[in-house]
Amino acid sequence: MGKMRAVQVAQAGGALELVEREMPEPTQGEVRVRVEACGVCHSDSLTVEGQWPGLSFPRIPGHEIAGIIDAVGTGVVGWSAGQRVGVGWFGGHCGRCEPCRRGWLIDCRNLRIPGISYDGGYADAMVAPADALAAMPDQLSAVDAAPLLCAGVTTFNALRHSGAMPGDVVAVLGIGGLGHLGVQFANKLGFCTVAIARGSDKEALSRNLGAHHFIDSATEDVAARLNRLGGARAVLATVTSAKAMTPVIEGLAVRGRLIVVGVDAEPIEVSPLQLIGASRSVVGHAAGASIDSQDTLGFSALSGVRPMIETMPLSRAPEAYARMMRAEARFRMVLTMAEQH
Amino acid sequence: MGKMRAVQVAQAGGALELVEREMPEPTQGEVRVRVEACGVCHSDSLTVEGQWPGLSFPRIPGHEIAGIIDAVGTGVVGWSAGQRVGVGWFGGHCGRCEPCRRGWLIDCRNLRIPGISYDGGYADAMVAPADALAAMPDQLSAVDAAPLLCAGVTTFNALRHSGAMPGDVVAVLGIGGLGHLGVQFANKLGFCTVAIARGSDKEALSRNLGAHHFIDSATEDVAARLNRLGGARAVLATVTSAKAMTPVIEGLAVRGRLIVVGVDAEPIEVSPLQLIGASRSVVGHAAGASIDSQDTLGFSALSGVRPMIETMPLSRAPEAYARMMRAEARFRMVLTMAEQH
Amino acid sequence: MGKMRAVQVAQAGGALELVEREMPEPTQGEVRVRVEACGVCHSDSLTVEGQWPGLSFPRIPGHEIAGIIDAVGTGVVGWSAGQRVGVGWFGGHCGRCEPCRRGWLIDCRNLRIPGISYDGGYADAMVAPADALAAMPDQLSAVDAAPLLCAGVTTFNALRHSGAMPGDVVAVLGIGGLGHLGVQFANKLGFCTVAIARGSDKEALSRNLGAHHFIDSATEDVAARLNRLGGARAVLATVTSAKAMTPVIEGLAVRGRLIVVGVDAEPIEVSPLQLIGASRSVVGHAAGASIDSQDTLGFSALSGVRPMIETMPLSRAPEAYARMMRAEARFRMVLTMAEQH
Amino acid sequence: MGKMRAVQVAQAGGALELVEREMPEPTQGEVRVRVEACGVCHSDSLTVEGQWPGLSFPRIPGHEIAGIIDAVGTGVVGWSAGQRVGVGWFGGHCGRCEPCRRGWLIDCRNLRIPGISYDGGYADAMVAPADALAAMPDQLSAVDAAPLLCAGVTTFNALRHSGAMPGDVVAVLGIGGLGHLGVQFANKLGFCTVAIARGSDKEALSRNLGAHHFIDSATEDVAARLNRLGGARAVLATVTSAKAMTPVIEGLAVRGRLIVVGVDAEPIEVSPLQLIGASRSVVGHAAGASIDSQDTLGFSALSGVRPMIETMPLSRAPEAYARMMRAEARFRMVLTMAEQH
Repeated sequence: MGKMRAVQVAQAGGALELVEREMPEPTQGEVRVRVEACGVCHSDSLTVEGQWPGLSFPRIPGHEIAGIIDAVGTGVVGWSAGQRVGVGWFGGHCGRCEPCRRGWLIDCRNLRIPGISYDGGYADAMVAPADALAAMPDQLSAVDAAPLLCAGVTTFNALRHSGAMPGDVVAVLGIGGLGHLGVQFANKLGFCTVAIARGSDKEALSRNLGAHHFIDSATEDVAARLNRLGGARAVLATVTSAKAMTPVIEGLAVRGRLIVVGVDAEPIEVSPLQLIGASRSVVGHAAGASIDSQDTLGFSALSGVRPMIETMPLSRAPEAYARMMRAEARFRMVLTMAEQH
Repeated sequence: MGKMRAVQVAQAGGALELVEREMPEPTQGEVRVRVEACGVCHSDSLTVEGQWPGLSFPRIPGHEIAGIIDAVGTGVVGWSAGQRVGVGWFGGHCGRCEPCRRGWLIDCRNLRIPGISYDGGYADAMVAPADALAAMPDQLSAVDAAPLLCAGVTTFNALRHSGAMPGDVVAVLGIGGLGHLGVQFANKLGFCTVAIARGSDKEALSRNLGAHHFIDSATEDVAARLNRLGGARAVLATVTSAKAMTPVIEGLAVRGRLIVVGVDAEPIEVSPLQLIGASRSVVGHAAGASIDSQDTLGFSALSGVRPMIETMPLSRAPEAYARMMRAEARFRMVLTMAEQH
Repeated sequence: MGKMRAVQVAQAGGALELVEREMPEPTQGEVRVRVEACGVCHSDSLTVEGQWPGLSFPRIPGHEIAGIIDAVGTGVVGWSAGQRVGVGWFGGHCGRCEPCRRGWLIDCRNLRIPGISYDGGYADAMVAPADALAAMPDQLSAVDAAPLLCAGVTTFNALRHSGAMPGDVVAVLGIGGLGHLGVQFANKLGFCTVAIARGSDKEALSRNLGAHHFIDSATEDVAARLNRLGGARAVLATVTSAKAMTPVIEGLAVRGRLIVVGVDAEPIEVSPLQLIGASRSVVGHAAGASIDSQDTLGFSALSGVRPMIETMPLSRAPEAYARMMRAEARFRMVLTMAEQH
Repeated sequence: MGKMRAVQVAQAGGALELVEREMPEPTQGEVRVRVEACGVCHSDSLTVEGQWPGLSFPRIPGHEIAGIIDAVGTGVVGWSAGQRVGVGWFGGHCGRCEPCRRGWLIDCRNLRIPGISYDGGYADAMVAPADALAAMPDQLSAVDAAPLLCAGVTTFNALRHSGAMPGDVVAVLGIGGLGHLGVQFANKLGFCTVAIARGSDKEALSRNLGAHHFIDSATEDVAARLNRLGGARAVLATVTSAKAMTPVIEGLAVRGRLIVVGVDAEPIEVSPLQLIGASRSVVGHAAGASIDSQDTLGFSALSGVRPMIETMPLSRAPEAYARMMRAEARFRMVLTMAEQH
């Protein structure tokens, strides 16, 4: 097995193209993962469009990787061939920057990211440093695990560190790739869960996922509605629009937090009066380190949280990517590597 | 002693005027405080200009009150005549709203405020509910204690709850009535203390107060300078301009917090990217309950923190107030009630 | 309705006796609760046996009270006749001791307790201060709510403040009145839940309640078994034997906590080596304030947690009490006040 | 410079002997430190007496190492020859155990320790992995820095994570090698500092070091005295006797913590009643990772904390060790490597 299939980008702004590549070999501290499934994430566009500083080409995207270790480099302890693992956005930490030394691994100033810093999971195999690995429980299929490694860990980790207590009102803003997992996690973490989305068509789905309340932001005053519920102790903002986050702040309870995981370069607007008058805060949350991914997989297996996915074989990666970019996926596209599909 | 002097406001937007009033009597759960000193705070303008909802007139302003209990109402336990006490912004909590029931007294939804909800300290005496009292240590004079009951507790309490650890870089934005205390507290709490102010004329003062570093925001790029120091784990924003807070966010270290105590209704602008990329947050902090004031007085006595003040006798309250409003005070105006002055 | 039935204790060590008493009237800040159900707790023996300092007689025991407000004293805001409420161990706080002033209401140094400080719930009605009230959701019956007001809040509150994260291994030591609720809460809070009890007869029950693992402490090495699961991040010790708690400490994971809610005057033994080598701790947890009870009721309604109870009419209180004291109840005895039964 | 002096132990229970050894060379990820000073710690007896599992001989003790990098192995980023550094008890983490993956570096299950896992600082030079290094500020001399790398970081790190707030009553139990630093740190962290020691001869010293109160445990009831001060929010137990820790528990305030850093295999005794009645806890604290040592050095430079030391040249290491073991040092013995002395 000296060759493998991969879907790569040849240059910034180039197309995704299916190619044959040499099977990569793990070096010191690395393992090779035979990929079973790889999620398609909006952040893959960073690779496709060449927007990450220092990105080199050709590059294979993909950072929601579920598979099986099939080769282990020197110096790797605790991981062995045949073991089911996942690799997410956290693709390795430097260990020497100040956040790493403090143990804040996800805040590593030299974080490596699969599909950006090195080749990712749109391929039959990929090589990852051992510190990027998350053990995967038997109860989870590879296709279900894949989206949990980025969309899942981001929402689960943000919610468990939100400071909200079980029983508190917690809202999830945006019911899409992240939000549909966020609602499930919020429910399973014991929160009184509120889903907020544009348009009433997502209400039934949200309630099925575990939302106790639904707010249609197209027709309702979100803050007023949250306040009628007592105010939200936390709002998990999964939308990628700062403008959509701003109006939610007035719906935060005393000591409530707006927890921002949806990326936008535009500003949220929040006044000192809004913050001081009720001891509120606006907090950024990065995804999670490999142990957080492992926790996410474990918790999902334990509690029954599963992503809603559409699968396509690796060869249809360009189509899967396009569908995701058009926001048509319900809710995560997952590539599968097995030939029959 | 059936009469007393007071400086009151007769109507919204009216002038401060010295009048003779009946000495007030404490009822159930209240004490009467013979005022020795009362600080003049910018928030007193809420009373003078009639900007607080439900404010009734005539009203005596003043919520930085240092004095001696001289009469005790029924049902008061643990406080007695002759005891030195302070009363600050926290003038009593309702005990029944959700924050009160959770023990978050400063977030009481029905907070009472001396000088707004009832007559304050621009007078020879005032009456306060027992839960508004802070015991005052012998080592502190009344004039020194007064500003600690609002400007002091606000900065001390915000800093001790900032999450920053001793030795961390902590900056104080704005060196005025609050900031000149903030710098002293930051130093005594063991932080590597940075003072940020407009204009180099405040550098020597800041260093005398305990700042290890000074940044002139008029001529320097504040964020760049903070980043050269490793980034700030916390910035205490005492200025009353959201616009001045926004640029500091880029100078926050990983997991750094902008802690907002300066009031403004205009928005701070902060992008999801800024927040997520370094797990930063923007946090509002209210002043403190009476026990926080008591802690502030105790810590100040222990550590030698003292406000810089200018004193005037009660009869010159209008002049003191005007001077404060023109931002000419260095740094807090304090009214004294003793006749000789 | 000037008279009511009550079961009282006439003197320390006396019997429980059914008597007719004047219906009590609420005074300032109090409400009268028409009792629908009252749990029988082991702590009621403090009243029966006269072991609490300052206890006066005759006294009506009972601090797991579920009922309906039917009279409201002066000065009570936010509570009205007809409202369903619960009253638990927390029967009112003084508001003036240091813990109260810091907002740590449950640590009040002058805590009042129904059935000890004043007459409790073994009666058709009782009077409680308004700050002792917890609002009760419609979804909970009175008999189900009653044990949640002491056994429930104790375990729920300890678990949600345990520092353990969803997905972590959390064990409940002792499957009885408290423990059978603790297991349910641990499951619903998302923990990988371990039940520990003497004898294999509790295994099936524990698993039905939500335990993912069961350890029979009569035949297994508890610590070794916990360590095979990775170690417990928290053990909730509901047993009333310090001797039974000591051996569990070695089964705590790194940063694991033994959380003690079961009362014993004998010592737990824990060495500095055990503590330092894995940053472990041993922590005491008091039940909870009225808002914590309210949260417990709300969470139970939301998540489906319910106590296992045996009910008896008020007139059979002596029998219910005796059954509880012989540890025969499965798992909480609840008195009901309706005549037909 | 192919040879160096070292003081080694040839076998378990053997004597410390001065020998000539080959100068060690750093391999991948390591640096060589030219030792300027090395503290003599009671834990060095683990090496001398051969009490650590897996210890191999001959072995050079010493884990309070201050010096200058003079050779850098391959793959080391961020450290260079000529840089002043310290190495303490934390001699490197594995990066792959669960605590490491969570970022709890000090709790590494495969922690390496200088002088135990590899040769330590009783020598002209030693080799350490880069992750064990702490940068040393210019303001600190090598002899002052050395004891801060174990005795210092242990006390500073425990105190800053104690949960006590500035102004709170914090006691240091035991005024010796750790305690005399603990008192200084407690004072500089803003605590109302209490020193507890056997015998009144340590009172003057304790007050000079910054204690606001002194309790002679030989003649006073420690708990009663602490309670007269309001109770201790934290007691840092530096003594190596569990028996001496037990009686302090009753002197903890509500929510007070006994923080254990002194090692003993015998048990502390603490009852559920003592814990629950005031929400107290007993907590173990390990020393600190290299960044914690770096913080300790930085804070000491900033605040003026310095150890009290007695220095001896390396050749007198056996005498220094014996003096330390007889508890005669005031308070830390430090070996210096410069020949003239």
